[in-house]
Amino acid sequence: MAFGHQREQGRRVLLRAIERHGPIPRIDLSQVTGISRATVTTTTADLLREGLIEEVPRQDGAETSRGRPRVDLKLRGDAHCVAGIKVSDTTISVMLSDFVGTELASRDVDLPKGPNEADALADRIANVVQTLAQSIGKNLSDLSGVGVGLAGIVDAQNGTVYWSPSLTARNINFRDILSLRMGVPAFLDNDANLVAMAEKSFGLGRGHSDFIVVIIESGVGMGIVLNDQIYRGTRGCGAEFGHTKVQLAGALCRCGQRGCLEAYVADYAMLREAASVGAIDQTLPPTKQFEQLLAAAKAQDPTAETIVARAGHMFALGLANLVNVFDPELIILAGEQMKFDHLYAEEVIAEMRKSIVQIDKAPPEVVIHKWGNQMWASGAAAYALDFVYDMAAKDVREDAG
Amino acid sequence: MAFGHQREQGRRVLLRAIERHGPIPRIDLSQVTGISRATVTTTTADLLREGLIEEVPRQDGAETSRGRPRVDLKLRGDAHCVAGIKVSDTTISVMLSDFVGTELASRDVDLPKGPNEADALADRIANVVQTLAQSIGKNLSDLSGVGVGLAGIVDAQNGTVYWSPSLTARNINFRDILSLRMGVPAFLDNDANLVAMAEKSFGLGRGHSDFIVVIIESGVGMGIVLNDQIYRGTRGCGAEFGHTKVQLAGALCRCGQRGCLEAYVADYAMLREAASVGAIDQTLPPTKQFEQLLAAAKAQDPTAETIVARAGHMFALGLANLVNVFDPELIILAGEQMKFDHLYAEEVIAEMRKSIVQIDKAPPEVVIHKWGNQMWASGAAAYALDFVYDMAAKDVREDAG
Repeated sequence: MAFGHQREQGRRVLLRAIERHGPIPRIDLSQVTGISRATVTTTTADLLREGLIEEVPRQDGAETSRGRPRVDLKLRGDAHCVAGIKVSDTTISVMLSDFVGTELASRDVDLPKGPNEADALADRIANVVQTLAQSIGKNLSDLSGVGVGLAGIVDAQNGTVYWSPSLTARNINFRDILSLRMGVPAFLDNDANLVAMAEKSFGLGRGHSDFIVVIIESGVGMGIVLNDQIYRGTRGCGAEFGHTKVQLAGALCRCGQRGCLEAYVADYAMLREAASVGAIDQTLPPTKQFEQLLAAAKAQDPTAETIVARAGHMFALGLANLVNVFDPELIILAGEQMKFDHLYAEEVIAEMRKSIVQIDKAPPEVVIHKWGNQMWASGAAAYALDFVYDMAAKDVREDAG
Repeated sequence: MAFGHQREQGRRVLLRAIERHGPIPRIDLSQVTGISRATVTTTTADLLREGLIEEVPRQDGAETSRGRPRVDLKLRGDAHCVAGIKVSDTTISVMLSDFVGTELASRDVDLPKGPNEADALADRIANVVQTLAQSIGKNLSDLSGVGVGLAGIVDAQNGTVYWSPSLTARNINFRDILSLRMGVPAFLDNDANLVAMAEKSFGLGRGHSDFIVVIIESGVGMGIVLNDQIYRGTRGCGAEFGHTKVQLAGALCRCGQRGCLEAYVADYAMLREAASVGAIDQTLPPTKQFEQLLAAAKAQDPTAETIVARAGHMFALGLANLVNVFDPELIILAGEQMKFDHLYAEEVIAEMRKSIVQIDKAPPEVVIHKWGNQMWASGAAAYALDFVYDMAAKDVREDAG
């Protein structure tokens, strides 16, 4: 049993090393993992036989002393296929990825504005994934895992959604509902955490061990990376930036409390201010109303200007509070929609810098990363792959025993 | 060289294990550290010879097969002596501790209200420590280390004080000034971090891996423990709770910015409100004024009540924001002075609970820990000991080589 555990641990370490460094020669694997060359040889032979990895000729064309091409090891893309899904207010974005993280197919599908019944949302997600899988000659059942990012308060470890704008029910194990509906293991997380993971894996957070990602969509999300890990808090509901209070007994928030940051900077919050003084055409759809409001502010209409300016001030205050408690080296402001540009404005960042504790060191770097829904979906796919690597590393022989 | 490093590592691990588990039999040391019995035998022989540890008869009176009493190992108290110092607004508190953390002597000495010149403060600290050392027949030079806790923004790693209410200068390496003045290695940290360390080592944080300590004195401090470690941020100035903003363009803070939590809940902030409407007798000393204000609030004087109530609301808001971002399992409200009782009131904690994101799980536990300056000083002594253990673990033979 202990030996089986050790063997599984070795497989996991080697698979991860091949994932991270591949294509990589066997001899280097021994070096980067500290695993003996003999064990590397037998374990990689197993992984090759199971089709999880493959040999590829060395890029420099080097040959062995017997004149055969030297080979490196890499993950075999076809070994597994996963889906990454981001559920936003009005869209489901899906990406299918192979075992090495290469995109196989992707699609955005409209979603009626939520909240949705859990079963209905699971159905819709399953259908979208199935349709996309079929487009590349696969089926839902060919997937090894599905990663799903949802806005709201999600306990990733146990799969519980405490609250999400996408779901009518509270305190529901949506991960189990999804897994059951799809017949495939589902992995759930707060969407902001998936973005943080994507930034860490292949975005602006690469090479940074401690940073914060703030995401502005219809709400305000945050992902915290400390010591190279997503920080989740002890109840799985940390990093709740949008509902930190920026004003005592302040504006009413959709969460039912007062003074939340979202109640000042979210689009609905700005639109209700504008509507209350007749500054926008309420017969337009909300997105158009919002565009109208921002355009009016740019044209220096005083009412629109003051609405947009207040959102910026509150956002700067909220960011400054994050810097004061976390002192991160980097803040990534990420957003899928260009429409929140006004919160990324240089004067907002400058105001944040003036509102933090002043020391004789540079303030944290702030970078802006605009990306679409598909980037979120690829974060979700990376999240699913993370679990699939570990599942694949489980020694098949042990299951038989 | 590599071997020497390994030997030092082994000494450190064993010394720490003896510190943590002692008195402990040699054979158990091998078990808890994973170090071979042979190495435990030779290394502990070295530590015994150097006087860092000692043998004590087993408490159960057990004997060896040859009829000799079985012995356990423990740190030898006399091996080293350290001082722990807490500099507060009006007091320097010192504690001398032996190598096992036993208090040898302690004293509180008045400090003229700061800020002070760095050299003058170092002088005063050195004199206080020297006088206390003499009272037990020792000298400053007999100390192996001095731990000092200061309010303000302190980069513990490099010894820089960016700002402290106790010092006139900014951006000054006060650790080096202290070390030089005393001829003994000094270790500096933010006082709130030292309290967090004390809570973790021998207070209410024992057995908790993730908790927050909030300290209310003349300012508002915070220490964060994540994963059993003090969280310091990347520039060494995280956990700045007192200067998080609770109001946009709000009350003026002593730091020069507006809307900081301290500008609402610190005693000076409440007194300036009271003074502005003539609600207190300004000829009294500030502490008396503050007592008068709180007494008036308890007697339901409307002006005093509203001043105290606002401080409570703002404190609840600030605490709720901490819970929303950190989601800790425990919050310890620590204070040396009973005078801030009103912020610990049940209605303040209840308001915090209503202002956090509501999920179907219990909110973090909040406990109140009132302690005196000496508890702070013992935290500082524990901090110094932490370094001294590592210094003692350095292989003396290696220095000779």
